[in-house]
Amino acid sequence: MGIKNGSQYMQQIDHSKPEVWLQGQRIMGMLSNHKAFRGLMFTQASLYDMQNELEYKNRMTYSSPTTGNPVGLSFLQPTTKDDLLRRRVMMSLWGERHHGLMGRSPDYMNTALMAFNTAADLLSESSPEFTHNLRNYYEYCRENDVTMSHVFVQPQSSRVVKMLDDGSFDTQAAKIVDKNKEGIVVNGAFLLATQGVTADELWVHPPVTTYLQETNNLNTFVFAVPNNLPGMKWICRESMVGGDSSFDYPLSSRFEEMDTLIVFDHVLVPWHRVFVDGNDRLSQKLFSESAFHTHSAHQVICRYITKSEFLLGVVLNMVESLDIANHPHIVEKVSEMIVHVETLKSLLITSEVNASPDRWGSMVPDRNSLWTANVLFPKIYPRMLEIIQLIGASGLIMIPSESDFNTEIEPYLSTYLAGNNKEAKNKVQLFRLAWELSSSGFGGRQALYERFFFGDSNTVNRRLFHGYSHKDKYMNRVNDFLK
Amino acid sequence: MGIKNGSQYMQQIDHSKPEVWLQGQRIMGMLSNHKAFRGLMFTQASLYDMQNELEYKNRMTYSSPTTGNPVGLSFLQPTTKDDLLRRRVMMSLWGERHHGLMGRSPDYMNTALMAFNTAADLLSESSPEFTHNLRNYYEYCRENDVTMSHVFVQPQSSRVVKMLDDGSFDTQAAKIVDKNKEGIVVNGAFLLATQGVTADELWVHPPVTTYLQETNNLNTFVFAVPNNLPGMKWICRESMVGGDSSFDYPLSSRFEEMDTLIVFDHVLVPWHRVFVDGNDRLSQKLFSESAFHTHSAHQVICRYITKSEFLLGVVLNMVESLDIANHPHIVEKVSEMIVHVETLKSLLITSEVNASPDRWGSMVPDRNSLWTANVLFPKIYPRMLEIIQLIGASGLIMIPSESDFNTEIEPYLSTYLAGNNKEAKNKVQLFRLAWELSSSGFGGRQALYERFFFGDSNTVNRRLFHGYSHKDKYMNRVNDFLK
Amino acid sequence: MGIKNGSQYMQQIDHSKPEVWLQGQRIMGMLSNHKAFRGLMFTQASLYDMQNELEYKNRMTYSSPTTGNPVGLSFLQPTTKDDLLRRRVMMSLWGERHHGLMGRSPDYMNTALMAFNTAADLLSESSPEFTHNLRNYYEYCRENDVTMSHVFVQPQSSRVVKMLDDGSFDTQAAKIVDKNKEGIVVNGAFLLATQGVTADELWVHPPVTTYLQETNNLNTFVFAVPNNLPGMKWICRESMVGGDSSFDYPLSSRFEEMDTLIVFDHVLVPWHRVFVDGNDRLSQKLFSESAFHTHSAHQVICRYITKSEFLLGVVLNMVESLDIANHPHIVEKVSEMIVHVETLKSLLITSEVNASPDRWGSMVPDRNSLWTANVLFPKIYPRMLEIIQLIGASGLIMIPSESDFNTEIEPYLSTYLAGNNKEAKNKVQLFRLAWELSSSGFGGRQALYERFFFGDSNTVNRRLFHGYSHKDKYMNRVNDFLK
Amino acid sequence: MGIKNGSQYMQQIDHSKPEVWLQGQRIMGMLSNHKAFRGLMFTQASLYDMQNELEYKNRMTYSSPTTGNPVGLSFLQPTTKDDLLRRRVMMSLWGERHHGLMGRSPDYMNTALMAFNTAADLLSESSPEFTHNLRNYYEYCRENDVTMSHVFVQPQSSRVVKMLDDGSFDTQAAKIVDKNKEGIVVNGAFLLATQGVTADELWVHPPVTTYLQETNNLNTFVFAVPNNLPGMKWICRESMVGGDSSFDYPLSSRFEEMDTLIVFDHVLVPWHRVFVDGNDRLSQKLFSESAFHTHSAHQVICRYITKSEFLLGVVLNMVESLDIANHPHIVEKVSEMIVHVETLKSLLITSEVNASPDRWGSMVPDRNSLWTANVLFPKIYPRMLEIIQLIGASGLIMIPSESDFNTEIEPYLSTYLAGNNKEAKNKVQLFRLAWELSSSGFGGRQALYERFFFGDSNTVNRRLFHGYSHKDKYMNRVNDFLK
Repeated sequence: MGIKNGSQYMQQIDHSKPEVWLQGQRIMGMLSNHKAFRGLMFTQASLYDMQNELEYKNRMTYSSPTTGNPVGLSFLQPTTKDDLLRRRVMMSLWGERHHGLMGRSPDYMNTALMAFNTAADLLSESSPEFTHNLRNYYEYCRENDVTMSHVFVQPQSSRVVKMLDDGSFDTQAAKIVDKNKEGIVVNGAFLLATQGVTADELWVHPPVTTYLQETNNLNTFVFAVPNNLPGMKWICRESMVGGDSSFDYPLSSRFEEMDTLIVFDHVLVPWHRVFVDGNDRLSQKLFSESAFHTHSAHQVICRYITKSEFLLGVVLNMVESLDIANHPHIVEKVSEMIVHVETLKSLLITSEVNASPDRWGSMVPDRNSLWTANVLFPKIYPRMLEIIQLIGASGLIMIPSESDFNTEIEPYLSTYLAGNNKEAKNKVQLFRLAWELSSSGFGGRQALYERFFFGDSNTVNRRLFHGYSHKDKYMNRVNDFLK
Repeated sequence: MGIKNGSQYMQQIDHSKPEVWLQGQRIMGMLSNHKAFRGLMFTQASLYDMQNELEYKNRMTYSSPTTGNPVGLSFLQPTTKDDLLRRRVMMSLWGERHHGLMGRSPDYMNTALMAFNTAADLLSESSPEFTHNLRNYYEYCRENDVTMSHVFVQPQSSRVVKMLDDGSFDTQAAKIVDKNKEGIVVNGAFLLATQGVTADELWVHPPVTTYLQETNNLNTFVFAVPNNLPGMKWICRESMVGGDSSFDYPLSSRFEEMDTLIVFDHVLVPWHRVFVDGNDRLSQKLFSESAFHTHSAHQVICRYITKSEFLLGVVLNMVESLDIANHPHIVEKVSEMIVHVETLKSLLITSEVNASPDRWGSMVPDRNSLWTANVLFPKIYPRMLEIIQLIGASGLIMIPSESDFNTEIEPYLSTYLAGNNKEAKNKVQLFRLAWELSSSGFGGRQALYERFFFGDSNTVNRRLFHGYSHKDKYMNRVNDFLK
Repeated sequence: MGIKNGSQYMQQIDHSKPEVWLQGQRIMGMLSNHKAFRGLMFTQASLYDMQNELEYKNRMTYSSPTTGNPVGLSFLQPTTKDDLLRRRVMMSLWGERHHGLMGRSPDYMNTALMAFNTAADLLSESSPEFTHNLRNYYEYCRENDVTMSHVFVQPQSSRVVKMLDDGSFDTQAAKIVDKNKEGIVVNGAFLLATQGVTADELWVHPPVTTYLQETNNLNTFVFAVPNNLPGMKWICRESMVGGDSSFDYPLSSRFEEMDTLIVFDHVLVPWHRVFVDGNDRLSQKLFSESAFHTHSAHQVICRYITKSEFLLGVVLNMVESLDIANHPHIVEKVSEMIVHVETLKSLLITSEVNASPDRWGSMVPDRNSLWTANVLFPKIYPRMLEIIQLIGASGLIMIPSESDFNTEIEPYLSTYLAGNNKEAKNKVQLFRLAWELSSSGFGGRQALYERFFFGDSNTVNRRLFHGYSHKDKYMNRVNDFLK
Repeated sequence: MGIKNGSQYMQQIDHSKPEVWLQGQRIMGMLSNHKAFRGLMFTQASLYDMQNELEYKNRMTYSSPTTGNPVGLSFLQPTTKDDLLRRRVMMSLWGERHHGLMGRSPDYMNTALMAFNTAADLLSESSPEFTHNLRNYYEYCRENDVTMSHVFVQPQSSRVVKMLDDGSFDTQAAKIVDKNKEGIVVNGAFLLATQGVTADELWVHPPVTTYLQETNNLNTFVFAVPNNLPGMKWICRESMVGGDSSFDYPLSSRFEEMDTLIVFDHVLVPWHRVFVDGNDRLSQKLFSESAFHTHSAHQVICRYITKSEFLLGVVLNMVESLDIANHPHIVEKVSEMIVHVETLKSLLITSEVNASPDRWGSMVPDRNSLWTANVLFPKIYPRMLEIIQLIGASGLIMIPSESDFNTEIEPYLSTYLAGNNKEAKNKVQLFRLAWELSSSGFGGRQALYERFFFGDSNTVNRRLFHGYSHKDKYMNRVNDFLK
């Protein structure tokens, strides 16, 4: 088949009918009709449509090695620097469509799966079948443009250990509780499957963990499943959609990616979807040797950049409409945002300039610069929101709605809320956008999402520090100097 | 009469029927029934009720010099350090009821009016009648426990100057457009009357400004009016009330103080409510010589403290429920919050220890420490919210609602969302509170409010720097050392 | 005897003839003649002289309970809040003389010894003799106005554990290597005895440590010794004295407190100077139950304040001489310094207002506010130095010397280096002071000293967090709110 | 002639005999013998020698278009991206020799002069002779490998305006006070000619300024002069050379670049050395249209990078010798330094990738990324020094000298000051290096130098903001989104 379009995406989700709970109710109708999901699904659909548009198709697809049909370029395993550039162009096209506000635009998971697939040989250490499973799964997803999500992290409760009557120990951590000839039976829960219910499939991959006793490691796994197996329950957080009006809620009406607690209540995962069975060292190796954190960081930095550019654009517009570009403390704040944008852009370019091949034949971007971005962005992003608040000030509080402009008070609004060369209605629209970014529930969830995207600060610091390539060179330079 | 109770408060607001616009509609019913106002009004009513409760009455009232009836202690002009202590105790009682989340609990405006009244003699410079008006107004408010709000700032549009056909200039700035024997006629608009429509009265007091041409200063004013004069239109921002459930929205269901654009469309203000007529130097003097910024800072710091203590309490509970008190980076963050709380408490105590009388007979707290708090809090408060996000992490994203606990998925929630020694439902409740503080629309508006309470950072820095009492002492110490 | 004067101080040091090594040489002559020590000793002497001056004597001394002679007030065990005030006044008098630049003005160690002495009863747990030793030592120091220093910390090498031929373990950590009837024999080294060689006596008190194997804890100790016992070797760091000119080096010519590595090479410590023998739990208890960290923090915050006030005075003078008080970014920086000064002053006042008695009868200042200061100052102080650099700019680089003003180029200097209402020579003098504070070797060592005074940031954070009194109150407030 | 070598450099400086004042004395002997200059001159000589070494010659020189002899590559006007790369390699070779500690290694001024020369045509607006002068001067410097310095900024005193008896105004600002057929006569002073007296020539170029009354602009200029014209007086600041020992003072013994006040007391500047005469608009244009701030930023970022790499190397060595790489707060700090290093490297690479030609035929690196570095580095550099202090702690205080290791106390030092796998002497050497960087007078002056290299923060922010190329693109993206 190859690339899908937007309506195919919507139909597939609507037909899968996963068990979804939101605000005390099970959602029975079509997700694409539900106010918590329809805006996001419409946006996601428009991304898939882009792939089919003449203007973009060349830049967004390549020929399937299996069928020759066009498939999504983010599935492409890069083997040259030019491939990296093509991937970047493709990912930036989507990024500039959703302005970096969709953490899970499809290229993210496509890239992740591509990375895992490059290292599929690793899995033969257990059995050639697992390698086979992973290669098949990758091909299936690429050829059908499958929409995926993933979960890695388990809830805090998974860490609690209970002693059983027979003296053995048990935990709530997710684990294989049974195996049979159909597959493995899994019990447990994972946190924050972002866009879990608006994706066809879920990749489940707990990292090495101290939660399970060592003797229980046999019970760990890596697998992928459709979103509607018996026993899978999706429990949603509060929806951050403010409403359908794109004037009043320009972001949450389009980009609200639901996060869910996904419960596996004795779910049978068929063998052909199992990639690691009872070997958490191998599970970990799949992360590190596939360069998962580098390949996905390449996708993520493209998103960071479009998002930061969008925020900078918002701030520049605010500064113009408030006529304050000559105030040194405003110049200072905008310059700081420019610094952040230019830094991210430079890290991306440099990751490609300094890319090098790995043993699987992939051209891997330079992790030093990408992981630098991963340490930076969780600090930069909240700071950029803070700058929006500091510049927007009362303009972010005094936000009437679009409907107010259709009443008899419209003349007051038009008189008193006008900006510098900007009509009141346009200024209110701009400041509502700035408000949603910086000061709304939608904005708050985005801030949390970015703060923890690749782990907390200890995790990303450690990854950068321990993976840093130039330690010896710089240490020796000092030692030579001291000789 | 003297102090009122909660139901009196509600009735008066409901009967005044101001012209209020919200989300494209004029509100025609009772505000106390409207979902955007009822929670706040109920909380405000409970504050008024406290004054009448035996447990608090002594600490919250004093005998009216006019009638001997108990009146609100925040109306008391302090003449001794003990008065400052009494005022602090009273304000902290209210503060601990609303946990600092109501920027406009009634003691704020009561204190402001008390301060202005101490300097009423100033106004005789224009005419003794203005002094008389202010003294009467203060007495009226104190004796009737009137609920007030204020506006100082005008929208950006007030700065734009247009040339008229006759060569003269005009602006949208608020001004006196006519006078007659009933009073002055005012046209213009002011920003962000917080709790404007849930207060009986509005104090209108533009500071000296460059917006009006100098020759127009004759057109400036200070006055106070009820909320329902003909020509007054209140235009609301988006409401941040999430819903009525105090489990799901523990804060916005109780403390959401609406901000409004208040338009004066040729409003006739009766003479006895006019305090300054056409003299913006005098208007400014009323601010500075009444020690308005010091007296009100004394009230505000009490609120800062209860709010910071509440945030610290939230964080300590989160840390306990996550069992992370032994992580150095957590200890670092909690210690930082302790530093902020203890700093604010110390500044308050010191402002009283170092208080001194002014020429009006008021015992004025030490402005050096209070204005220090005014510089600090706009930086501290967002940082405390950031700490909540950094500690709360995914717990602030995975927020199901109270109703989810009444469905068949309850066992999953109870199993997987439990905390350390904390049942899942309680943990979710705690984290929803932390979420509303740090990451919701309600929380975003509170952050903006605190950032700009006493002006932007340039304003509060300048106030501290230019009002600082110890400059010469410290400069001379250095000069003596260098001699 | 009672209080001593400056020349007595100098004579005693000069006569004690400790073994001191500096820059590859053993110092054989009088320390008070040596350029690395004479300036500091002269300043220290002037502090002792102050106690004897009529202007200060009443405020700086009290009657010895033993002899009735005046003794130093920093030896006074406070039993009332008024005692705390008297102590504060005394400590501030010295502080304003050395502008907080002497971390080891005598009141610091006098206070430390006073604190330890209050808890002397504790030591009877081992033997009543140790209590007796400590009481005697305290009395000896108070009655003879003994100048003391202390060491707590050992060099990194003390952590290394070596296996011996017989299978046992050994370390370089300081320990008792022998005991005889004269006393204990100690071997090891301690870091950074500040003013060690310009003090009569040294208090040696390693905190509980993992460096010694648990079975070796019998080898730990607390004792005090004169600076010249056989086997004691003082090894100095680089001296930061720039020169004797108080114009060119206003600070290092007066306040340079030498730090030393003190080696105990099999030193015999007489029994009457031993306070803890082989019990590191007791050694630790002596710290905590004597409120050492609180009493000494009360002395230290007085110093923090005078130092910060001095820095603020320097900055205010710089701003005036550069005529830049109307620049918002300058106002911002100076306001930040005011915030720091006022915060520290408030924490001190509050620590006294909220003081409470302990079981030894001491009136102990509130540790919450003092330990807050201990967390703050290591961040504040380097920031204040940074502000000096940011404001001083090229003025801190272009620093000619006093002697340049006595040459034919004086007219150029006077023309081109003049400030706003400030003659060139005075401006250069001011900026040299600012340079020594912020940008010289002396200033660098002071910055390091303040960063680590009470331990690194993890240590002071942990102390504040675990010792915080109000945790339960604030946690309960949230819990009550959620009920 | 072409490139010179080190001894030629030294001889020329020694023979020029400028009038230099230091610490109240005129220096009469050879600078290369004077302790304040010899270390720096030796290092500078070694840079010139490198050009002549076989290992480097190809990468550091190119053929003179005039003579075909090898001339310094930093004189090369880049016309392709490859030229930029060649320039970068050359500048990095020198940078890695002096580890970024020489702000005025010769490539800095060579680059500046190259930039000015590209735009020499501009000067014909006044007279073709000025274009001719500049072209000749550039060629002269290139062909003779002339060592240059520059001054832009005048002392604060230049801003003071005095009224004269005849009612006209005068200032101390530098100006042309006379002209004759030999040249212009200049009077005034400039600040901080770094390496002024260890350079052959000085470029004098005051930017547009409000200091001179507008009618005096006729009196402004741009010129270049040798360091020894009659009337030129060089007045040195305090020397930061600690001593000649490269163990004790590894940096100041080699890299201390003296700053001077340069006074022009009625100096006659010959016409052929005058480039702008009485036209400060043109003087300003020469800055902007030559892309001076971009070309020189390309050189400067190469230095920033080698310096940051060196600091990182120091920190990594410290962490290893202290054995603390497993502490999260250490990992956090080192990671932050890695972030800074990788950010700077990425900005450099990107400035070349995105370079574009200007109208003079130069290939100009992308100013967006370079000016980003100029905003960042003044914040990064002091922070990196702070990290050295925070990690080095007591190790930066306890710094004995090399000579201490040659005495009888050596065994104590070797025992107690050893590090993890590092002998005491090597550890002390490393920490003395860290001390000189972070906490010495040399380090303080370097910090000040970096803080203000391209102007204060307002200046570099404004340059970035107003020169930013992408404003419209990002603003339009938001506007399109809102449509």
